[in-house]
Amino acid sequence: MAQTVLESLDLLQMGKRAKAAAALLARKSTPDKNAALLAIADALDANILSILEANQRDLELAVRNGVDPIWIRDRIDLEKRTADIIADVRKVAELPDPVGEVLLDSTLENGLQLIKRRTPLGVLGTIYESRPNVTVDVSTLALKTSNAVILRGGSDVLYSNMRLTEVMQDVLAAHDFPAEAIQYISSTDRRYVTEMLRLYEYIDMIIPRGGNGLHTFCRENSSIPVITGGIGVCHIFVDESAQLDKVLPVLDNAKTQRPAVCNSMETLLVHRDIAEEILPQVVAVLGEAGVEFHAGERAYQIVGGDERVLPAADDDFDTEWYNLTLNLKVVEDVDEAIAHIERHGTQHSDSILTETASHAERFLNEVDSAAVYWNASTRFTDGSALGMGAEVAISTQKLHARGPMALEELTTYKWIVKGDYTSRP
Amino acid sequence: MAQTVLESLDLLQMGKRAKAAAALLARKSTPDKNAALLAIADALDANILSILEANQRDLELAVRNGVDPIWIRDRIDLEKRTADIIADVRKVAELPDPVGEVLLDSTLENGLQLIKRRTPLGVLGTIYESRPNVTVDVSTLALKTSNAVILRGGSDVLYSNMRLTEVMQDVLAAHDFPAEAIQYISSTDRRYVTEMLRLYEYIDMIIPRGGNGLHTFCRENSSIPVITGGIGVCHIFVDESAQLDKVLPVLDNAKTQRPAVCNSMETLLVHRDIAEEILPQVVAVLGEAGVEFHAGERAYQIVGGDERVLPAADDDFDTEWYNLTLNLKVVEDVDEAIAHIERHGTQHSDSILTETASHAERFLNEVDSAAVYWNASTRFTDGSALGMGAEVAISTQKLHARGPMALEELTTYKWIVKGDYTSRP
Repeated sequence: MAQTVLESLDLLQMGKRAKAAAALLARKSTPDKNAALLAIADALDANILSILEANQRDLELAVRNGVDPIWIRDRIDLEKRTADIIADVRKVAELPDPVGEVLLDSTLENGLQLIKRRTPLGVLGTIYESRPNVTVDVSTLALKTSNAVILRGGSDVLYSNMRLTEVMQDVLAAHDFPAEAIQYISSTDRRYVTEMLRLYEYIDMIIPRGGNGLHTFCRENSSIPVITGGIGVCHIFVDESAQLDKVLPVLDNAKTQRPAVCNSMETLLVHRDIAEEILPQVVAVLGEAGVEFHAGERAYQIVGGDERVLPAADDDFDTEWYNLTLNLKVVEDVDEAIAHIERHGTQHSDSILTETASHAERFLNEVDSAAVYWNASTRFTDGSALGMGAEVAISTQKLHARGPMALEELTTYKWIVKGDYTSRP
Repeated sequence: MAQTVLESLDLLQMGKRAKAAAALLARKSTPDKNAALLAIADALDANILSILEANQRDLELAVRNGVDPIWIRDRIDLEKRTADIIADVRKVAELPDPVGEVLLDSTLENGLQLIKRRTPLGVLGTIYESRPNVTVDVSTLALKTSNAVILRGGSDVLYSNMRLTEVMQDVLAAHDFPAEAIQYISSTDRRYVTEMLRLYEYIDMIIPRGGNGLHTFCRENSSIPVITGGIGVCHIFVDESAQLDKVLPVLDNAKTQRPAVCNSMETLLVHRDIAEEILPQVVAVLGEAGVEFHAGERAYQIVGGDERVLPAADDDFDTEWYNLTLNLKVVEDVDEAIAHIERHGTQHSDSILTETASHAERFLNEVDSAAVYWNASTRFTDGSALGMGAEVAISTQKLHARGPMALEELTTYKWIVKGDYTSRP
């Protein structure tokens, strides 16, 4: 392994190099970028042994530090994931390149030709926790859109991330691309995160990927625009008119398919008129899959007898469980459901199951979340499930991008104006 | 005047009220919003005397405080502007409403209907200096797009702004709109700006309108996304092949038409092969209009004999003059022009005057500014000049919006997904 953990880093220099690299990337053609991406896929494949060797070093450190084995398997261990990572890179090469797209082309009354054209953002800063696949995901989506990246991953996958970065940098250099288009902050000292968040002159957008604490830290400390997201206290409201036989599979899907992702359901709201019928079924079916329930007062009156049901504590309805816990609450009607979501939701993904179109319309209009669903599981909020071909993050803020972010969301635009020595009257 | 200057304000309560108002505004129809806008125009007209009375109070304070008379006339005195302000409100009523626009409507392979629909942002926070027309501009553009606003204007127009707000609030209340859709921070204590910038839960976007210091302060202290912009060190590069007889009117327009706006030219770059021909003409023609020149070394060798020409100091090329000062610099070629702009520009508006298409293409592609021009004055970077019908600010950052921001730029979108009790495979 050539790269070593640096004792001190010059982030200002990294920022300058990234900005210079971005200017060069902006001039690269789509075929050249795709060739570089395919070469990265090949190089990851060819260097698999040294990548897993670096990953082994992270795994050994994690074991020595007493890290939870489930965390190690889910977040650190790369062995079973390399094929997927490499396949994803090839997929990015196949996606259409949004850079250069003409969003508007018109001639004004004064004869000026006005073109609004999609351009790269410039330099992206990504701060993330564990999961070394993010290193490759973000780098390749950035490369496809002619953006440079500065990456800062979790300390428990440092060696894996550094080796992955090195492999990608070597490919860039061999393909006449600037190697500094992908830079990794090879120190686990948190002060570099703070320094990175102040590189306003050199970084155009910060994408945090991690828990609520990381997002808050970035928002509070960054002078660079931050894309906040990924925190999902998602709800499903079962209205009185829902077809109850079709409801249970949707609830099961939303809660148990992947409980530790942000688009899974954390709170089930049920209309009071069907609560006595549906709640015992929910407890029986989802309970079978290992779900434990935290029930509000009225729900507890109905299903409190089951040993898997506990009374809900005050802040349970504001908690992103990330596990097989589900809050249960009985509401009066669609109004109370909307009000509950407004108060406790995180503007991520919320769904109504109903046969009453007017209730669905109100829910879809008034619930102010990135994705709102009618008769569907919240699990679809994801770049690939919504047909965007990729995903770099899920935004729950409203500026720039909302919901899944893929290639287009890594671009901006410029106004190009052509005249004939035209002055403004 | 009913409203008085408050000694202490509860910004958290203002934020909560704004958010509640935004939820109500989101349900208002376009005809209802337009009716409210026209009623605001009528009410401003009907209340003109009390508005000018409040303005008189600001004027007297300004005179007593020894404020520069030019500043008073340009920034504080409302008397000659009320007709324009009222006309602008009527124009906003006529503009198309972007809210509700369907940006995408498709059916996925699994049968899910996917709709991407334009929605209001929610709550806008605007911090601005002087110019009471901004109070009405921003409020009415926000109302048109169903956004609530919290306004914080300059201390020297406090009474004018408060009276204008009051007139608009009365109309809202009379039209069954929430009066809290437009709120004004009626204290000049700067700590309320800082408090406002931390209302992350309640404000969705901060739009500063003012000098570099205000923008920097907002970026450094806000946990809410900030739209940075309005700082313009704009360039025109005259290439060797430009038609010199057509060049002078464009330069004159860019520099002297409105020197104190952000899209006016601050630096003229000229190709070395035409420098000796064009620079004396520039000094003669623009000098006639009162322009003073700060010339780089080679330019000074050519026109340094003229008394209106001073040698440029080091940081002149980074200065937004906002007056009739113009930097002059001779460059080798289009490469040096692009490099100069990359180093000294503010990514606002830059222009090339040339007959060489390949040079123009390079300039338009490589200069990374919100607006890039070929054979035109930089003065066109403005919402109305580019056919957007309005302008709330000019963004020189790359996220969310770039260049002039009008109605669409005050919106976001949501994903609406309709299924048939659909689960994710």
